[in-house]
Amino acid sequence: MPAFTYSLRVRFNECDPQRVAFNANYLTYIDIAITDLYRQHFDDSYAEVMESNGVDVVVAEANLKFLAPARFDEEIEVAITVERLGNTSMEVSSLISRDGEALVTAELRYVFVDIATWEKTPIPAPIRETMAKFGPA
Amino acid sequence: MPAFTYSLRVRFNECDPQRVAFNANYLTYIDIAITDLYRQHFDDSYAEVMESNGVDVVVAEANLKFLAPARFDEEIEVAITVERLGNTSMEVSSLISRDGEALVTAELRYVFVDIATWEKTPIPAPIRETMAKFGPA
Amino acid sequence: MPAFTYSLRVRFNECDPQRVAFNANYLTYIDIAITDLYRQHFDDSYAEVMESNGVDVVVAEANLKFLAPARFDEEIEVAITVERLGNTSMEVSSLISRDGEALVTAELRYVFVDIATWEKTPIPAPIRETMAKFGPA
Amino acid sequence: MPAFTYSLRVRFNECDPQRVAFNANYLTYIDIAITDLYRQHFDDSYAEVMESNGVDVVVAEANLKFLAPARFDEEIEVAITVERLGNTSMEVSSLISRDGEALVTAELRYVFVDIATWEKTPIPAPIRETMAKFGPA
Repeated sequence: MPAFTYSLRVRFNECDPQRVAFNANYLTYIDIAITDLYRQHFDDSYAEVMESNGVDVVVAEANLKFLAPARFDEEIEVAITVERLGNTSMEVSSLISRDGEALVTAELRYVFVDIATWEKTPIPAPIRETMAKFGPA
Repeated sequence: MPAFTYSLRVRFNECDPQRVAFNANYLTYIDIAITDLYRQHFDDSYAEVMESNGVDVVVAEANLKFLAPARFDEEIEVAITVERLGNTSMEVSSLISRDGEALVTAELRYVFVDIATWEKTPIPAPIRETMAKFGPA
Repeated sequence: MPAFTYSLRVRFNECDPQRVAFNANYLTYIDIAITDLYRQHFDDSYAEVMESNGVDVVVAEANLKFLAPARFDEEIEVAITVERLGNTSMEVSSLISRDGEALVTAELRYVFVDIATWEKTPIPAPIRETMAKFGPA
Repeated sequence: MPAFTYSLRVRFNECDPQRVAFNANYLTYIDIAITDLYRQHFDDSYAEVMESNGVDVVVAEANLKFLAPARFDEEIEVAITVERLGNTSMEVSSLISRDGEALVTAELRYVFVDIATWEKTPIPAPIRETMAKFGPA
């Protein structure tokens, strides 16, 4: 069971002349889902959580498999699981699906950086504690 | 004769299931053309010109007429004319065309703001002088 | 009172280095709101309504005033009012706001076209009837 | 030596509040570079090559490593190498760099599909012959 799921509808402008969601949008969908996870499970918004902890997060790696296309106006689910919390990095897997059919699977590695130096920095304790709740079942 | 022209190709991801460039992209095309005008006609980049003058620019108004669609991979021209330089605002017209056929006409009003307060501020003299060269013929 | 209102959250990727929603996105927000109006008030989806009536809709004109910026993660409301239903065209006004503060006002003119010839065509009766419910109060 | 290189400038709207190109845009940049490869090395445009061969291409897999960020107005190079031409699929590697500094490395697997059935189909001979020129040095 995925730890967190966000639903969204595919927008017209996100679809291309093949009439399917353009591939780059799935990376955006995952970003949106993780932003929502922060919004719902921290006391502050994503931006405030980062700022108050003096960190920011960057994507270091993203591996995506495209299994089936999503189309205009379809509702899709973006499931997020925190697979591993390292010292400075976090590994996340995502399953994007429609009515239970897998469309895209993804594995991402995020790195926490110091807001001032933009150098790798340990994951702040409050972020680590909250994200740990979204590990694999 | 337009004062400045920038050429670009319509990207696949900018086209929608109607197989034409999605309407919002034309506002982006105009933004790209004006960025290029700054790059070519100031000593510094757009960002540096703004920062060194302590200002930024925001769009206050945009009026667009869509006459004909642009399609994937077509080369289009974005012509920019500075119609009026006020105290704190600049009016620009744009004609987006393909092989001489008008696709979109636009009128935009930009307002210069102080980088610190985000309040309206007079157009800095170096910016005013350069932009004045791109007036109507 | 606006006839139809759609809420959405500003996405991180929609914001630019000025830390506000990039201007072109407001045209997209209006498109999304109108798609949702169709989804909720017709028996079929937007795409099916258009196809079954043998028409499509294109934006012919868009006039936008940008009053204040929206920022990352903010929830905004996109209100839609059908101001006028002509023979082949429809005029819509939109007010985009955040907690009652106006951010963008817009007036758009849409033209219905025949799906086969892409020529102007009268607004089909079922579409006209439904859209008429969203006139000014 | 990469087989094909395309240059582009990072657009303002492609940058996010971290002031760097948003991660999903790199997938778009690779798409743009490959479109340009087709334009320059086939007799027809990308769309015409696909249509005349009765095929289309979809991305089946994309693995990206983000090494350093690109910023607004920077010129970046998108190098494309065709690593492997299978029966129905094509593997491509891409190096996105700025002044010789690697920013993103990517490996993509594309699958050719029949335009009518959307089922996997062998790579048409003319496409295979041209793409074979862009193999590793």
